[in-house]
Amino acid sequence: MSTAFVTSRRVEFSDTDAAGIMHFAAFFRMMEQAEHDLLRSVNLSVVMHDAAGKISWPRVAAKCDFQAAARFEEVLQIEVRIARLGKRSITYSHRFLRDGQVLATGEITAVCCRIREGALPKSMPIPAAMAKKLRTFVESSPRQ
Amino acid sequence: MSTAFVTSRRVEFSDTDAAGIMHFAAFFRMMEQAEHDLLRSVNLSVVMHDAAGKISWPRVAAKCDFQAAARFEEVLQIEVRIARLGKRSITYSHRFLRDGQVLATGEITAVCCRIREGALPKSMPIPAAMAKKLRTFVESSPRQ
Amino acid sequence: MSTAFVTSRRVEFSDTDAAGIMHFAAFFRMMEQAEHDLLRSVNLSVVMHDAAGKISWPRVAAKCDFQAAARFEEVLQIEVRIARLGKRSITYSHRFLRDGQVLATGEITAVCCRIREGALPKSMPIPAAMAKKLRTFVESSPRQ
Amino acid sequence: MSTAFVTSRRVEFSDTDAAGIMHFAAFFRMMEQAEHDLLRSVNLSVVMHDAAGKISWPRVAAKCDFQAAARFEEVLQIEVRIARLGKRSITYSHRFLRDGQVLATGEITAVCCRIREGALPKSMPIPAAMAKKLRTFVESSPRQ
Repeated sequence: MSTAFVTSRRVEFSDTDAAGIMHFAAFFRMMEQAEHDLLRSVNLSVVMHDAAGKISWPRVAAKCDFQAAARFEEVLQIEVRIARLGKRSITYSHRFLRDGQVLATGEITAVCCRIREGALPKSMPIPAAMAKKLRTFVESSPRQ
Repeated sequence: MSTAFVTSRRVEFSDTDAAGIMHFAAFFRMMEQAEHDLLRSVNLSVVMHDAAGKISWPRVAAKCDFQAAARFEEVLQIEVRIARLGKRSITYSHRFLRDGQVLATGEITAVCCRIREGALPKSMPIPAAMAKKLRTFVESSPRQ
Repeated sequence: MSTAFVTSRRVEFSDTDAAGIMHFAAFFRMMEQAEHDLLRSVNLSVVMHDAAGKISWPRVAAKCDFQAAARFEEVLQIEVRIARLGKRSITYSHRFLRDGQVLATGEITAVCCRIREGALPKSMPIPAAMAKKLRTFVESSPRQ
Repeated sequence: MSTAFVTSRRVEFSDTDAAGIMHFAAFFRMMEQAEHDLLRSVNLSVVMHDAAGKISWPRVAAKCDFQAAARFEEVLQIEVRIARLGKRSITYSHRFLRDGQVLATGEITAVCCRIREGALPKSMPIPAAMAKKLRTFVESSPRQ
């Protein structure tokens, strides 16, 4: 059985736009923040160091479907699951809720990369100790 | 034959993050800005008024795939096409290029809505005069 | 004796820039967020309604002095005091701390305004009930 | 005689907030963007490299006074002058105008620093060649 990680964010005034609602790009910022909350909950970080240097997670894909607007000062619950834990990448799936109503659902795929100053990020296998900590958030397929 | 609308944006320092590259959410802001540039190019705006009041375009879906990073001070070309011009919604498709290299491709779907203070946005048919101006940006399907 | 209101914010990845630290404009967003936390702590909001309509608080001045950088994932304490509670305006003063070290100090002055759709904000006296709730945060002058 | 550097920015939808106007923190982002435009106009950048490594300009102070609101799609003219060209720091002064009306005036002070990965920025004298290029933007005092 998978476990959804749940965190929350309040819609700040600087997240809103002239339509009077949270700007759609703010959902993507919050999706990333929720992912980082998940990582911290198991003592990981999106920026880590091992003996060989810095490891981080450039995003290769992000998407979000918006069902209902969020407004200033509302507190949104954000559920995060791992839809796919690959060899070198992770796909996180997100649900935004307000009082049980789903406002938006999204996904972010990030690739485990070695980061070196002045060089392009280079993909690398997810360290085993890290993958192990994340397994608890992996969505079980419906039939298993 | 469809025509891509082309605009550009410079990567500002406030668009970057601690990974030294443009933050992924900034691509979504620029996709929206490019859409608004397209609208202005035919004397439209994402916020318009008709006899019955205000019309605007809440986003219902957005996605982006990232192939390569963008860095501070780079000027990005952004191509915008209309992938689908519906009765009540438009799907814009975007390509980010730097010196001919594709950095990212994305899509935003927005719905034509009547906006009233204190009420939820209500979808409405795209006004005919507006649809007509936008037809030039509609992608022709490859076989037609 | 005045009471500082204390709140906190974590530096999110989207708050950082290519210098590897929190972007200076993010301090201003957090100063405003801390002000709004203060207002909520006494059941007020920066956007309120009375019998005559909407009341809000456009900013007329903001400043911040930066002593030390803040980095990704750090949790910052933000102290907010009211440096001046005027007839029609409030000056909030802010201190950012990390483990007791002051990182930055700032001020925001906001004016109580009647907000009407399509009209410019118009300054108005701060409602007495609101001023009363805020008095506890007013800095006493050192000698009084 | 000093020369103001003049640039412009359009108020994007993502710059606005639920009050229907440009969010006050967006003025600070634009002040920085205008400074970077000024630097590029004389072939400089806020991030440069010399034989000893990377040079950049952390901000130590920023302020802005707001006289009038800016709205979506408006094009703002931004004048930048150098109020003070010090040995190790520069104070830029900014004016935002729309059709000749002053909307806001601000100042940013930035310090010339050696930047090394993993170390705190360390202030250093402004390179002579850089100072020379910037002299044209220095405000002459009224009486000289």
